[in-house]
Amino acid sequence: MKLYTFFRSSASFRVRIALNHKGLKYQAAGVSLPKGEHLQSVYKSVNPQGLVPALEDGGHLLTQSLAIMEYLDEVHPGPKLLPSDPFDRAYVRAFSQIIACEIHPLNNLRTRKYIGKTYNLDEEGVNSWYRHWIAEGFAMMESFLAQEKKHGTHVFRDQVTMADCCLVPQVVNAIFYKCDLKPYPTVVRIHETCMKLDAFIQAQPSRQPDAT
Amino acid sequence: MKLYTFFRSSASFRVRIALNHKGLKYQAAGVSLPKGEHLQSVYKSVNPQGLVPALEDGGHLLTQSLAIMEYLDEVHPGPKLLPSDPFDRAYVRAFSQIIACEIHPLNNLRTRKYIGKTYNLDEEGVNSWYRHWIAEGFAMMESFLAQEKKHGTHVFRDQVTMADCCLVPQVVNAIFYKCDLKPYPTVVRIHETCMKLDAFIQAQPSRQPDAT
Repeated sequence: MKLYTFFRSSASFRVRIALNHKGLKYQAAGVSLPKGEHLQSVYKSVNPQGLVPALEDGGHLLTQSLAIMEYLDEVHPGPKLLPSDPFDRAYVRAFSQIIACEIHPLNNLRTRKYIGKTYNLDEEGVNSWYRHWIAEGFAMMESFLAQEKKHGTHVFRDQVTMADCCLVPQVVNAIFYKCDLKPYPTVVRIHETCMKLDAFIQAQPSRQPDAT
Repeated sequence: MKLYTFFRSSASFRVRIALNHKGLKYQAAGVSLPKGEHLQSVYKSVNPQGLVPALEDGGHLLTQSLAIMEYLDEVHPGPKLLPSDPFDRAYVRAFSQIIACEIHPLNNLRTRKYIGKTYNLDEEGVNSWYRHWIAEGFAMMESFLAQEKKHGTHVFRDQVTMADCCLVPQVVNAIFYKCDLKPYPTVVRIHETCMKLDAFIQAQPSRQPDAT
């Protein structure tokens, strides 16, 4: 397997955790977002969406991080990223989508660049936008966990799932942007538990071959 | 089943199509986003995320439209919304996520309201933001379809899948905002094919009991 990845991309980070957790070996191909390599023809001929991550496996190119993780779980061996009960699966997916659909799209690099340029914002202006969506989305995560009462050491009981693969990169980003995470103690506690596990430690941005 | 829905919410529209296509009956409970009913305590005690849609089934509350559709497909009878081959499943999920993760979060009501207020934009300013993300995301959809070569009358061959349930509400929204869709002929053609089917016709905003 070959993973097109960027060390600071949190969607790439999700898939790196999933691959590590399932014990799957892969070759990493770095695609620099700040250098715009994702928009150049070399990469766009691989993935015309111009996004990372993308995973080559079995002669196919797989895109979109949640779709990639579902695929890995359906096809490859290793610990399951989704539980077996349909209500539990829906819980793990919904939590993952709070991050992938309610937070990350608003805060990723292409959105921050567009906001900054279009509305003539300085760095603090862009960071203020960033922190607004963190506060909104983290409140959703925390209240979802409180209502569902399915969390344990991890988002789903005591087992690593796709939801943890999404949570950790999002928390790492929020810490990087100095967001106040005190109102979200359950999210922070799960993050800290995950970051003691090798699959998460090895997947973090600073450990990647393309880290600068 | 009881669906918390708002007639113009495209995430609700996705789930309404899926329910109709699978022939599943449900009771619709309207939650008005413009009136802010989704943020009031009555609804937040149901879904603390304060988002629609949400589906009550089997004593559980299911949230996030893609998670709801996956759940419906796993548990309920009716035509399948996902194919059986893992690569085809990944294709349908990735297409769905181009819409649910790359377009819709940037253009939904809460984002438009925040943009308008924070950057002091008039209606045309907000519409310009809207059309930018439509152009970016629709180009991704069109190039994804061209590269994968799995589309037929629908996103996946000649069968309705979760991908069509996502495509149609997004196209309906883009038409509502007078976006130029000429550069995306495959997307538009699939939309037109879907809109001849009863499941899609009955799910559209104007046919909903809460439509005003």
